[in-house]
Amino acid sequence: MLDLWKRYPQVSEQLNDVNSLIQKLMISDNPAIQSLLNDCARQQGKMLRPGFFLLFSQLTATPAEKSDRLIKIAASLEILHQATLIHDDIIDDSPLRRGAITLQAKYGKDTAVYAGDLLFTVFFQLLIETMNGTHYLKINADAMQQLLRGELSQMAARFQQQQPVTAYLENIRGKTAALFRLACLEGAYFGGSDSTTIELAGEIGENIGMAFQIFDDILDYSSSTGVLRKPVLEDVAQGVYTLPLLLAYQTAPTEFKDLLDKRQHITKSEIRQVAHLVRKHQGVNQAKKLAQSFTEKAAEKISLLPDSPVTSEISQLAQKLLKRKF
Amino acid sequence: MLDLWKRYPQVSEQLNDVNSLIQKLMISDNPAIQSLLNDCARQQGKMLRPGFFLLFSQLTATPAEKSDRLIKIAASLEILHQATLIHDDIIDDSPLRRGAITLQAKYGKDTAVYAGDLLFTVFFQLLIETMNGTHYLKINADAMQQLLRGELSQMAARFQQQQPVTAYLENIRGKTAALFRLACLEGAYFGGSDSTTIELAGEIGENIGMAFQIFDDILDYSSSTGVLRKPVLEDVAQGVYTLPLLLAYQTAPTEFKDLLDKRQHITKSEIRQVAHLVRKHQGVNQAKKLAQSFTEKAAEKISLLPDSPVTSEISQLAQKLLKRKF
Repeated sequence: MLDLWKRYPQVSEQLNDVNSLIQKLMISDNPAIQSLLNDCARQQGKMLRPGFFLLFSQLTATPAEKSDRLIKIAASLEILHQATLIHDDIIDDSPLRRGAITLQAKYGKDTAVYAGDLLFTVFFQLLIETMNGTHYLKINADAMQQLLRGELSQMAARFQQQQPVTAYLENIRGKTAALFRLACLEGAYFGGSDSTTIELAGEIGENIGMAFQIFDDILDYSSSTGVLRKPVLEDVAQGVYTLPLLLAYQTAPTEFKDLLDKRQHITKSEIRQVAHLVRKHQGVNQAKKLAQSFTEKAAEKISLLPDSPVTSEISQLAQKLLKRKF
Repeated sequence: MLDLWKRYPQVSEQLNDVNSLIQKLMISDNPAIQSLLNDCARQQGKMLRPGFFLLFSQLTATPAEKSDRLIKIAASLEILHQATLIHDDIIDDSPLRRGAITLQAKYGKDTAVYAGDLLFTVFFQLLIETMNGTHYLKINADAMQQLLRGELSQMAARFQQQQPVTAYLENIRGKTAALFRLACLEGAYFGGSDSTTIELAGEIGENIGMAFQIFDDILDYSSSTGVLRKPVLEDVAQGVYTLPLLLAYQTAPTEFKDLLDKRQHITKSEIRQVAHLVRKHQGVNQAKKLAQSFTEKAAEKISLLPDSPVTSEISQLAQKLLKRKF
């Protein structure tokens, strides 16, 4: 978290408050549950969603809301994200996340199912505390539903070699971009921006989210294991075919078919062959171009935001985030 | 469903509307997800929670709310219940529920995790549609949290032989009674009852829920496989020690110790020995007495409800439900 936000002291300080709040919410009088909740609270990532929320909330000179309400909403975004990560790790059978042992590996998938569920309730409790009676409750519930429909849709498409790029884009629009969109949208709203700015904020968030997810998927095919925190290409063995593979497949389907027909029985060495084919057939380069188009859309819309120091911070952060090394 | 509610034509008709609504909510333009959602919508049980909700909503001559709002709230209760069942089945690795193949068996645990999550969002969407701006949003989120803390606490207590009865009671108060409490409480509230009746309704629901769960746990130890729909005594192999076992253990711990020390490696024949010991040491009979005390508390409080035809229906239903055959 700290590295990324160090340049933005105000956000960085507020993110510390967000973390303190999350820790305060994760309490139980049952020692076994407390240990589990401590682990939930410790699982800090880059805090992108609460960070973007807080940045967008500062677009106006005088935020419309008191700071503690903003901290709670920022926390709700991180908690929703964490809940989905806990359930993702069950599905991916991941031993590690952000370099730390996952809940599912430490406590078992069983406990991790309920732990994720519990975080969903904490998410809703925070929303109810901060926005009961507003239409942002529905916007939040709808975003959560979009996220889950994206995940389910991705699962349903597993091992489908001829999946259209549009289907992939729809899935990541749900599973990743919906939450970035929500963060920026409600940041602007609860910060007191006008309706044009709020709408722009949502579009910026969505485009950042799209580019972010595509870059994440590109990393699987373009970097050495040392750079990646999650096992390279675990997606392929699970039948999750992401953009670089889908694009390369369209160019040379026959070269991929025999390898992918092995489905979950594909070996590590065969996955390396797949990765080689993906690069050979320009899957990575084409995917980068598509990601770039989302980055440009985001940049274009950022340039339409009201002129303020925060706008230039948003612009810099988006550029930094979406120009990660491959 | 039909059998139980046949005697209450008005509730029975409304429950049909609840089912139609649930089916309408379970839609997707993705065929694979649609198949999954159809299965969710088909998984009808006894509809106890929406049924109790609707009964309690009729305590006043003229319900305060329009019928379609009541139907939506009733549906929210059933959907929350179904979401937790889907996740329970993942944890229990259950092949069957209510005689039908479970989602986790049919689609895999992975998909079932997200399917349950999706139902949680539908639950919240229904609440937001029907009670945004009221304090019942918080009451619902808190009930859901209690439910999950009960489940987690039960998981954390697995294989603990010396678990106090009070801990068991706290766990079932969360995992089962909280939702019965909510159903009756908000039934009375949205039906327009006065505050004394609303409070009574919550207490009645809680006591019915406690007795219901204890009776469910007793069934494991007292009936033949033919009568039970879930594998007899699967709980013991998973380390979930319910009331009859805990009570019998307190009487003769040394007789149980060697068997239970085998933990998950306990054989079917050894589980039968455990069941024999439970009955021998009056575990079933003592548990029945405790269940009876909750039934009596419920009956006592039902007698304090306003005198109306619905009150006598509630009384009959509670008696019927809590005097199941062993």
